[in-house]
Amino acid sequence: MENLKTPTELHDMDLSELKTLAGEIRELILNTVSETGGHLAPSLGTVDLTVALYSVFDFRNDKIVWDVGHQAYAHKILSGRRDVFHTLRTKGGITGFPKRSESPYDAFGVGHSSTSISAALGLLIAGEIEKNSGKVVAVIGDGALTGGEAFEALNHAGQLKKKLIVILNDNEMSIAKNVGALSEKLSEIRLNPQYHRAKKEFEDFVRSIPFPDIGSKILSAAQSVRYGLKSAIVPGALFEALGFSYLGPVDGHDIKSMRDIFSRIDALDTPVLIHVHTTKGKGYAPAEKFPEKFHGVGKFDKETGEIYKKPAPATYTEIFGQAVNACAKINKNLVAITAAMPAGTGLRNFAQYYPERFFDTGIAEEHAVTFAAGLAAGGLRPVVAIYSTFLQRAYDQIMHDVCLQKLPVTFCIDRAGLVGEDGATHHGVFDLAYLRTMPGMNILAPKDENELRQMLFAVLERNEPAAIRYPRGSGLGVEVDDIPKKLEWGKWEVLKSFPGAEISIFAVGSMVKVATDVSKLLEAEGIFVNVVNARFIKPLDEKILNDEVKKVKIVATCEEGTLQGGFGSAVAEFLADNGISKKLLRFGIKDNFVEHGTRSELLNLCGLTADKIFERIKREILRSD
Amino acid sequence: MENLKTPTELHDMDLSELKTLAGEIRELILNTVSETGGHLAPSLGTVDLTVALYSVFDFRNDKIVWDVGHQAYAHKILSGRRDVFHTLRTKGGITGFPKRSESPYDAFGVGHSSTSISAALGLLIAGEIEKNSGKVVAVIGDGALTGGEAFEALNHAGQLKKKLIVILNDNEMSIAKNVGALSEKLSEIRLNPQYHRAKKEFEDFVRSIPFPDIGSKILSAAQSVRYGLKSAIVPGALFEALGFSYLGPVDGHDIKSMRDIFSRIDALDTPVLIHVHTTKGKGYAPAEKFPEKFHGVGKFDKETGEIYKKPAPATYTEIFGQAVNACAKINKNLVAITAAMPAGTGLRNFAQYYPERFFDTGIAEEHAVTFAAGLAAGGLRPVVAIYSTFLQRAYDQIMHDVCLQKLPVTFCIDRAGLVGEDGATHHGVFDLAYLRTMPGMNILAPKDENELRQMLFAVLERNEPAAIRYPRGSGLGVEVDDIPKKLEWGKWEVLKSFPGAEISIFAVGSMVKVATDVSKLLEAEGIFVNVVNARFIKPLDEKILNDEVKKVKIVATCEEGTLQGGFGSAVAEFLADNGISKKLLRFGIKDNFVEHGTRSELLNLCGLTADKIFERIKREILRSD
Repeated sequence: MENLKTPTELHDMDLSELKTLAGEIRELILNTVSETGGHLAPSLGTVDLTVALYSVFDFRNDKIVWDVGHQAYAHKILSGRRDVFHTLRTKGGITGFPKRSESPYDAFGVGHSSTSISAALGLLIAGEIEKNSGKVVAVIGDGALTGGEAFEALNHAGQLKKKLIVILNDNEMSIAKNVGALSEKLSEIRLNPQYHRAKKEFEDFVRSIPFPDIGSKILSAAQSVRYGLKSAIVPGALFEALGFSYLGPVDGHDIKSMRDIFSRIDALDTPVLIHVHTTKGKGYAPAEKFPEKFHGVGKFDKETGEIYKKPAPATYTEIFGQAVNACAKINKNLVAITAAMPAGTGLRNFAQYYPERFFDTGIAEEHAVTFAAGLAAGGLRPVVAIYSTFLQRAYDQIMHDVCLQKLPVTFCIDRAGLVGEDGATHHGVFDLAYLRTMPGMNILAPKDENELRQMLFAVLERNEPAAIRYPRGSGLGVEVDDIPKKLEWGKWEVLKSFPGAEISIFAVGSMVKVATDVSKLLEAEGIFVNVVNARFIKPLDEKILNDEVKKVKIVATCEEGTLQGGFGSAVAEFLADNGISKKLLRFGIKDNFVEHGTRSELLNLCGLTADKIFERIKREILRSD
Repeated sequence: MENLKTPTELHDMDLSELKTLAGEIRELILNTVSETGGHLAPSLGTVDLTVALYSVFDFRNDKIVWDVGHQAYAHKILSGRRDVFHTLRTKGGITGFPKRSESPYDAFGVGHSSTSISAALGLLIAGEIEKNSGKVVAVIGDGALTGGEAFEALNHAGQLKKKLIVILNDNEMSIAKNVGALSEKLSEIRLNPQYHRAKKEFEDFVRSIPFPDIGSKILSAAQSVRYGLKSAIVPGALFEALGFSYLGPVDGHDIKSMRDIFSRIDALDTPVLIHVHTTKGKGYAPAEKFPEKFHGVGKFDKETGEIYKKPAPATYTEIFGQAVNACAKINKNLVAITAAMPAGTGLRNFAQYYPERFFDTGIAEEHAVTFAAGLAAGGLRPVVAIYSTFLQRAYDQIMHDVCLQKLPVTFCIDRAGLVGEDGATHHGVFDLAYLRTMPGMNILAPKDENELRQMLFAVLERNEPAAIRYPRGSGLGVEVDDIPKKLEWGKWEVLKSFPGAEISIFAVGSMVKVATDVSKLLEAEGIFVNVVNARFIKPLDEKILNDEVKKVKIVATCEEGTLQGGFGSAVAEFLADNGISKKLLRFGIKDNFVEHGTRSELLNLCGLTADKIFERIKREILRSD
């Protein structure tokens, strides 16, 4: 690997050299990710596939789009980023996903699921129009294939009949164990290796009939009438029905077989789907055994596979998981929905306790939300648990199916705010702004894990659409009441109020703790501050807002979300609409995408630490005096 | 029909009575829609299907979800809305789409495409959990089936193995002629009626082999190995692969055959897809001949099929169509994309002139946007023409694939603002707010059709994501320059400026004309007003905003869009962030969904007419004096 100058050198390597190379890449990935954390299992699963691809294609001219992109570490290493690979997912280092600005080999940036076929088709057609003869490959997992956009793209590509190459990286997993009828069908193909030999077997069998005349009549009848027995599912029929040639399944760790297939597809003049069977975590026993645990993982001991965990308070995810179980015990109509992330969203236990009330739609946020609306229209109380960034996929369904019909669907939005190392594609910083545009939506954010539990109970006593958003990681370590204190609906919480205070800070969710810290810093300088936990972002608690604003000269808002249309924007609207003239300082995320780094590095970068907010407020107060 | 008391009376009707009823329903639809306008061709196409469904199911307990819902007029008529049917799509009258608050027979509200299977699956499961034995039917067109959400739902339903009934209403059209590989496959099935007889034929053929031993061996080999010839596509293989039983195709105007099938599906214990073949516009010759023209139609002469058109200035749609052609002539890299609406978006001519640069993705907004991002990443200049309300489907793709990568995709957003008779599901009032959350997005709105042309030329000279939004219907009738005047990028246009004016109005798009009218009304009362055409909504022209605001006591913003996070909100943010204390009056759509009516009725309802704005401003000025 050390001697590799350009990736095309793989074209001339023999099989044993390629195998050695794959081994070295695995070692580098393992060594790095055990230190930096990252998407280990997906990236180990595709090392052999990546080596086989690079041994045939020339990605200086050909293009490759990795769906989601968490399986692309070998691609990064082979395309000139070996020496910086140790900086993976660290601030200023390389990202965990393909990114156009990082390398010309990253033909299209990814992060969210199911976009690769659409993007690859666009790249292919652009190449044609610009008379560039390069091939275009999309690599998509069987999990990502359940996302509707992938189907839309297959349908379009099948019609255009362009020579698009789609590699179905089938590991029977999205992040968790895969679901959906298609996934069952793929397993069926896999479990019946005779499937893909069927054509030849049938033909041989018919030819063996000792009456050649009859044999050939049968074959010709079969070919002309295009008969089919009801139960006879052709391998890949689904893809063939969409206009693709289907090849496979092929062992995704057999470099020779893959190389052979990749070399020969040029002869086809249709789009082609190559079904490759890989093992998540391949080559590292702990990851092969626990692929979900090692999907996205923190620092771990590579010898033992033990994942280092600092002792820390329970995460918001865990608290949500406990709370939803407690609510389900009381409310028999409660059902829970995830889009392929039962563990990530905290619904693992719920799924075990209430299997008949738990639904995993696969990676299919749009369907998940309309399905929930249907459940609600039928009288149930669906709780939809989706990360903030992925819920963007269902903007229209939340608007059109839930809010327009005023259906009581509850959205539990994890990973709201800055998520850290996963970077720009994964930060959940737009939810307050995009949910706020929706008539009838209630938006809540808890200041700590105990309030999260209160909020879930409170929402389920109402009969309206509602969203609760909370950050990645540990709570504050406060005590969580088994029977939660009743939350007064729509009411903010005044945490500090001083007569004659100079400023009121209205803070949302994770920023309430920060605002309290700011107030202490200011008090140490003799500046008195009111602090309000603005736990309802929509509708605003206009009474408390109005009262508190009138007491002070300066108003500040703090949110871990975009300033464009977010909570601070709602406060600005309120002040404007009510003719209240006060200086307003809005703290939040500026109108830019935020890169990757640790959560605390990024909060600092965005000016959302107590120190930075303190400094700015102090400057403002000195100026106004 | 007059004597019909409850819809279940259809259960006891014989075939000739059902046919008579279907004829009467067609007549009522034709009589009404020729007066009110509406979705004629889709609704005529499903009359026989609807009658057949009502003759078997009991929709007091069973549930039906109509995808999109523009084909549900017969359903409305049969479910107790015959006497109010003449109020179709008029203010205060019944809506053009199923709506839960309108009738218990409307199990789920619709308007946007591809949601029916998701919603129906939710209703079915809710019924099961609540021990309700009703059946659930989703009716989806072959056009809507190309939307990814429908596939997500099929995949989930297939896995759950619930007895969901999906009726594929295949008329080879979405709104325009259908596209996509799936659509070709459906046509192929249709054109080869022997397809669905294939199983029997093949078996008969094999049995006819004069050596019974060999014949039975072949059959058993076929059944056990599940062989398949490469080219042998089983009818409905795609649906069978997803876990559905496939029945059909059946003639959707043959009430007897449909009734027979619907009566017998109870015996199946899987989800079932029934492929029904209908003719759009069935029974009314002009609509059968021109189904796209009569898809959604205004008032027309039912005798001649002549559509009444008031002489009116060219529509924004037409002007866009001309402008994009002019740009394509200059810029060889320009490509255009529609999601199943070549005529609706004005791209018909483009498609004829530049077939190799025109792409119709089918009803698939998500794919359309990522595909465009891929085209842009490959060096082209894609123009994506999608209605405002439908573009909501692609919120995440605009954010994640276009803006995050700063790709120069141009969105031409028609039907922005209030669309009128199509009502709540179709108003394009959220685009300014949701697009404004996206870093790097440019948002423009023209004050008239000439400026629309200028904007398209201007955007294509830049290398950034941009969106131009414009309303439904005619322009102002201004002259459109062949070679457009160059638009200064980012710069607002000051239309009126008086020294000592009391108020500055910043207006967006369609509201610029209204603001000018308001200024005249105010001038007549001696109140002087500055008027600014705020043609760039993002980024704001902060220089002009700052200058103009400082001159006056009161600032007003006018937009045909939501006040939550929209243009006025951006101005409120600007004033707050810059410590500018001015009274701000924000005119726009309040935080509610707006119902149906004519565009002018709705503008009046929302307080967006010159009279209403004048009154409010005058009140405010008198108060502040």
